[in-house]
Parts: sequence; C-alpha cells; structure tokens
Amino acid sequence: MRITVLAGGVGGSRFVRGVREECARRWPDGNGGTAASVTVIVNTGDDIWLSGVRLMPDFDSLLYSLAGVNDTERGWGRAGETERVAAELREWGVGWPWFTLGDLDLGTHLARTSWLRDGLTVSDVCERLQRRWPLGVRLLPSTDTEVDTHVVVDAADLASHDAPPPLGAPLRAEMHFQEWWTRYRATVPAREFRQRNLATARPARGVVEAIADADLVLVAPSNPVVSIGTILAVPGMHEALAATAAPVVGVSPIIGGKVVRGMADACLPAIGVETSAEAVGRHYGFRRDGGLLDAWLVDETDAAAAGSLTEGGLLAASAPLWMHDLDRSADLAGAAIDLGTAARSA
Amino acid sequence: MRITVLAGGVGGSRFVRGVREECARRWPDGNGGTAASVTVIVNTGDDIWLSGVRLMPDFDSLLYSLAGVNDTERGWGRAGETERVAAELREWGVGWPWFTLGDLDLGTHLARTSWLRDGLTVSDVCERLQRRWPLGVRLLPSTDTEVDTHVVVDAADLASHDAPPPLGAPLRAEMHFQEWWTRYRATVPAREFRQRNLATARPARGVVEAIADADLVLVAPSNPVVSIGTILAVPGMHEALAATAAPVVGVSPIIGGKVVRGMADACLPAIGVETSAEAVGRHYGFRRDGGLLDAWLVDETDAAAAGSLTEGGLLAASAPLWMHDLDRSADLAGAAIDLGTAARSA
Repeated sequence: MRITVLAGGVGGSRFVRGVREECARRWPDGNGGTAASVTVIVNTGDDIWLSGVRLMPDFDSLLYSLAGVNDTERGWGRAGETERVAAELREWGVGWPWFTLGDLDLGTHLARTSWLRDGLTVSDVCERLQRRWPLGVRLLPSTDTEVDTHVVVDAADLASHDAPPPLGAPLRAEMHFQEWWTRYRATVPAREFRQRNLATARPARGVVEAIADADLVLVAPSNPVVSIGTILAVPGMHEALAATAAPVVGVSPIIGGKVVRGMADACLPAIGVETSAEAVGRHYGFRRDGGLLDAWLVDETDAAAAGSLTEGGLLAASAPLWMHDLDRSADLAGAAIDLGTAARSA
Repeated sequence: MRITVLAGGVGGSRFVRGVREECARRWPDGNGGTAASVTVIVNTGDDIWLSGVRLMPDFDSLLYSLAGVNDTERGWGRAGETERVAAELREWGVGWPWFTLGDLDLGTHLARTSWLRDGLTVSDVCERLQRRWPLGVRLLPSTDTEVDTHVVVDAADLASHDAPPPLGAPLRAEMHFQEWWTRYRATVPAREFRQRNLATARPARGVVEAIADADLVLVAPSNPVVSIGTILAVPGMHEALAATAAPVVGVSPIIGGKVVRGMADACLPAIGVETSAEAVGRHYGFRRDGGLLDAWLVDETDAAAAGSLTEGGLLAASAPLWMHDLDRSADLAGAAIDLGTAARSA
C-alpha cells in the first residue's frame, strides 16, 4: 500500500501521525511499524528567511511531531525548548520581536541554512533532516523553489493596528504570511494571498512520482488556502493529481462551520469561499470536472453537507473528524482510507 | 589626546582595557571616563564563516571584554554562556565538533550575519554591535574585506594527527586559521600564513584617518604574525603608519623568550623570526628604515634586549609586561604612553 498525503504543518502533523498509526494497524511489518509506504508532500508557503536563517515551519512541525520531539502542550516547536539566543537577538534588535526562535529549533534552522549555503537543494536538506530520527514516513517539500506566501491587506485595516498611514500612502500593503499570521494573528482582513516565484516553481524531486505511483492520495485537513492551496499552486502539481490512477480523498478542515485548528476562516474569505465543509469540498472540486477530489470526508455533524455533495455527484461520507488523540486520528485516517477504497471501486 | 591601538583579540583586550583605564587616570572626563579618545584597529584575519554564520573572534573578544560581559575564567566568550544550539548542531552534523558556538555568542553571530545579508558592510556591522554597551573606546575592523587567514602545513605533519595521506596526495595542505588554531592547537608546524583577498583589501572606513589624526599609535602585545601581521598586510595600512606624525610604540608579546599568551611561538617560525622580544622588535623594524616602530617596550627581564635595540638606534625601554590585573595593564599602558612622549621629543 502506497499512500501519499498533501499536508500543512500542525493539523497535517496530527493527521499524518494518524495515517502512520492506522497503517501500522492494517499493514503491520511485524516490528511495530508498517509495510505500507507513506509519503507526505509538505507545504512550503510558510517558509521564510528570518535573521539570515531559513525557516520551514510546516516541514519542521511534521518532522518534530513524527519524531516525537514536539512540544505537545504548546502545540508547536520542540519539547524542552529555551530561548537564550532569541533574547540576545532582541537585545541586538534583530529579527521580529513577536516571532521567537527557540534554541533547539534554531539548531535546525542553522543546519538547514548551512546546507543551503553549501549549495544543497531544499529536497537535499529535507532528506538530511529526516535522517536524525526514524519517522516511519517520507517527507518531501512540495517544491525546491522559494514560494513564500505574501498577504495583501488594505492599508486602512493596518492603521487600526499601527500608526495611521501617511497621506498619499498606497492603499494596499503586502507582508510575509508569517507577519500576518504571527504578528497580526490573522486579524487584518486578507485581500489576497500571493506566492512568490510561482512562474518558475516545479514540484520537488519525487513529488510527481509519489502522486503517480500512489495507491491512494489523501488531502489532510490543513488550511485549504495557504497550506493545500499553496501546494496545488505549484505548476505541474495539479496535472500530476489529475493524472494519477489513485483515488484522491480529502478530509475537511471545517467542522460545523468552524475551523478544526489554525485560522483558515481568516483565509477562506480572501478567495471567496464560505467557511463550511461543503463550500471547501466544492472549492477543491470534483476530479472528473477538472477539480482535485474523488471523495470528501466531513465530520458527522456535517453529514447534511455530505448528503448535498453526494447529490452533486461527489463521493462524500462523514466520520468523527476531531483528532483529540492518536487513536482518534488513526480512526479518522482509517475512514479516509476506507473512503478511498470505496472511490476506487465506484 | 587621541590614541590609536592596533590589536588582536585576547591579549589585545587586556591591553586595551589597560589603555582605557590609564587614560581615565591621566585625562579624566569627570564622569569616571576619559577625555582622551581611544580607537582600536582590530584584526579580522581570524574571522570565519561557520555553519552559515560569520564569526569575528577578535572583534567580539574586544567587544565583550570592554563591555565587561566576557568570561574571565575561561578567557574567551561570554560570561554565563550555554551551548544548547551547539549540541543540536552536533546532532545535525553541522559545523566543527571541536569548535563550539555558545548560545549568547551565537546571538552576536546571527545579528552580524543578518546585517551582512542585508547588505551592510563589516564597518557598519561593527558600529552597530558597539551601540549595545558603553565601551569607552571605538573599535574599527582593520578592513571590510574578508581576509581570513589560512595556514599551509605539510601533509606529512597532518598524518600524525589524522589518517596518513593517500599515495599521490599533495605534499601541502591548507586550512583555515581557526582549524589550525582550535582543532590542532597550533601543533602542526605552520609553513606559511596566507590571507585571502589581500589584493583587493583596503583599510576600513576611518582606519587611515584614525592613524593620521592620532597623537600616539600603540601596537598591542598581540600575535605579531596572525594578529598584527594581518592588520599590517592590508594594502594602505603600512603607508598610513609610515605617514602619521604620531609616534608608533610597540609592546612586546614575548617575555623572556616565551609568549605572554596565545601561541605566537607556533607562528613566528613560519616567518623566520625567533621567539624573543628583540627578534620581534627587529621584525617590526624601525620606522625611519621603512619599518613600523619608533619605540619598543619590552619586559624588565628582557632589559638586555632593550639595550641591544637602543644601540641599534631604536628607542627601547623596559617595564613589567605581565597583565595580571587591570591595574598592571594600566601601568603597562602608562609606560607605553610615556615611551611615546619620549619618542615624540627624541
């Protein structure tokens, strides 16, 4: 069994841990692992150069989480983290005071930056970073190109947060996604999301093959705009997903009109999509009509949405989507895998 | 009173602290400081790119020491240092396992690297780093050009440290000064020291002016080869020192045939200079013959050398050179200042 997952960071991490667990249950290798092969195509739109080092927040979230070294209480970064260097950087006035680099995390950033400066590609670097711990899955960056997401906002909306804009100032302002997300907590309405360098971006090494050779493609319940949307925006990605013989099953990041985690509800309006399981399913679209999905899994409380989508011709089903613990994440992954089986025989 | 000092890191720091203290005694400003103006031209030959960040060991030694945040027990780096990030870098296999980057120190390196990546010059960066603490002196890098010193050794000498060289391997090997100094503790005989990019190097902003406008130029008891030697090797530096109206007074880094600190005795043979106060004085040379010095200060135990040099025409004197504490460093600085006064009236 070969499963390929498209995923963002925090929500993606929980889901992928569930997939790994469910695979170990269904296709055990006799050593506590799985004979199934799981590949994760990771969003790189959140990546950023900060204080001269390269951060890949989604990749690191998956790495730390799958390695079991993540901070489960805080929900991000490394367990046992400290902030000695960050305190120094604040003294020097370097970086963003509202964006703290943990010491252990900084070790990862420095290793990555050092390898990038040596001329390694993002794919090479991601491969090296995975050698440290046995993850049980393979992580691929969606692209080697720096497609950092930027957010366009109205200058007038920024004014309520900062000083008012001077007369004659431009009406729109653009900032890196991390500034919008972390500094402004996504409270400044986003007018547009723009990924850098999309014209020259290509799927990273192994990505197209992982989609083509898969028995099942899963779309994690990650942010449809800035996580899954950025993966899909890489030229060649949509074509690979359209061409694969594997069924493509998506899991809704929206439960009962609310986001499961993260702030997708601050992103969806910018692309004109309602915050509902049905609307996101329709936004991804049916594969036979040129869209992404063969099947769509929504929460039990959104069963009506599943019904409505099924009437529209999409294979939709409902299951408990809350990933409160590893067991429930694995059960959710199991429901997605079952839906894939149903889609294959449909 | 305007004093300009040429200095390396650790020995230079003690000497410059002594100069600052002596100036506060002789030319007090009424606020515990001095009305004299002290500029230090700092060796940059020890600088290195490591793990993607730029290190300037001599500059940082002076900075930390003058700010009073240096580790006085260990003799280098910041007080209260930790090594959380370095432990991570070792796990990642990045950098040199025998060259540890402290967390507080790494804050400085990251700030510097971030500014350099933003396009600031080394001079700009050094100016910014000095704003954090009131130093009472001004530090200038000798040059903005990366003149990192490399050491040429015999491959056969390396073989006793590492694996023997393969047949057909080159007879000589070249390594960064920091590798030779820190990894091999300067125990592999140096055949040659080579500074990078000397052809295009120029004195940094303010350096030539600080020499031209000085009332006194002091050469700290730093390594004559890899500290003072690298400063002097920057094209234009020698001309500036030859042209200044200020007397140039050197302080011997050798006491009774032994180095005061550091490992200058491992460097002097490579340039064919004996490890003695007299030989180093002759190596620097008399200014009226095209050399560096108007006067040379040696230790009391080397009074014979002073006599011999005086016979040769150089103004030489002896004083206690051991800088055991701040008082004795200040007394030494005072002796050097007095020798400058004598040289001016000679």
